[in-house]
Amino acid sequence: MNRETYSLLENYMLSCMDDSAHDREHVYRVLYHALEIAESESGVDYDVLIAACLLHDVGRKEQFENPALCHAAVGSKKAFAFLTTHGFDTAYAERVRDCILTHRYRENNPPKSLEAKILFDADKLDVSGAMGIARTLIYKGIVSEPLYSLLPDGAVSDGEGDDTPSFFQEYKYKLEHIYDHFYTKKAASLAKERRQAAVDYYNCLYQEAASAYEEGREALDKLLTP
Amino acid sequence: MNRETYSLLENYMLSCMDDSAHDREHVYRVLYHALEIAESESGVDYDVLIAACLLHDVGRKEQFENPALCHAAVGSKKAFAFLTTHGFDTAYAERVRDCILTHRYRENNPPKSLEAKILFDADKLDVSGAMGIARTLIYKGIVSEPLYSLLPDGAVSDGEGDDTPSFFQEYKYKLEHIYDHFYTKKAASLAKERRQAAVDYYNCLYQEAASAYEEGREALDKLLTP
Repeated sequence: MNRETYSLLENYMLSCMDDSAHDREHVYRVLYHALEIAESESGVDYDVLIAACLLHDVGRKEQFENPALCHAAVGSKKAFAFLTTHGFDTAYAERVRDCILTHRYRENNPPKSLEAKILFDADKLDVSGAMGIARTLIYKGIVSEPLYSLLPDGAVSDGEGDDTPSFFQEYKYKLEHIYDHFYTKKAASLAKERRQAAVDYYNCLYQEAASAYEEGREALDKLLTP
Repeated sequence: MNRETYSLLENYMLSCMDDSAHDREHVYRVLYHALEIAESESGVDYDVLIAACLLHDVGRKEQFENPALCHAAVGSKKAFAFLTTHGFDTAYAERVRDCILTHRYRENNPPKSLEAKILFDADKLDVSGAMGIARTLIYKGIVSEPLYSLLPDGAVSDGEGDDTPSFFQEYKYKLEHIYDHFYTKKAASLAKERRQAAVDYYNCLYQEAASAYEEGREALDKLLTP
């Protein structure tokens, strides 16, 4: 890919991101992760891979505004339209489109091409480790969801089996389980290296919150008179 | 304090928080931290301390809507007005007001009473450790500030000396330095126990981000043709 094409795609990506610093940062990390994963594979079409990485989240805003929409479906259509409108040939635009369409995990819609698998893995890698923790906490701030729920007895829930959304619920429901779902060996290995940071952080945060409530509620109960 | 008074203050606090789950959670943790710190002190007026903890952030919304306002100043006035309107005597309302006024660190406005010092320390304790990391990341989501800035050469800055706001900048500017600023021995000791979790998390996140950019940008540079 030449630098002019890269800039064209990069600028289109940036124009779709509004002012979300976090979405932009994520796109560059996914591109960089993908290039690292690709070094361990052979026969990678870098023109497809780079375009797919840069454009994989161009449908994010539409999904945020209307959660019934899937950003992978919206984004794949937007990317295809952008590429064909700007003179790229249809077969190329279709390959990029298919990578974007399958980058979000859905059982009936797995990534098929090598480039689609690398994009999928690069995107998931950015939910692993300390970065996965940071991105999830930032998202909880944006959508105003709590860090934790309280159990019926008033103690802090560790998230396991929670029905209501919270950071701990998302950790238990999603972050804890991503490490077994990679297509490439390289991505699985990189994620494994990052795993302990996430586990350690979750455990520390849970301990801090749980012990504050446990000791504090007991002390308060003794101090309050009927 | 009797349970009816506690409920009155708690409900007023909740009415000031709108639907910010994170503000509410913080208030309960500050109360619980304060009670734990108070156990190591003698002569604590728990009626003042509990009221001051529950009401310490009732001016948050005003500051969020108008950053020129100080939530400690606004909140101390709101708390005083609420207490005197609801039949509490003026001397008591003044003591609660003074705790709230000085809970935010300002060199020319240090906490004076024992209860004010405990509130100050309990509030700062909630910025230490894994909880301080979580709260700062959530805030960066709410105000849409980035995780990191890039240095002029395109590498990820560790936050040291940064001019523009980011999570790493706030870690280096604020979170890293809170551990030496406690009034009570108990709070200093609790914060020290929590410190390593924050240091480890920051180091892991920085490593993940910095290495992705370093390797990714080099790989991209080799792939792009003029």
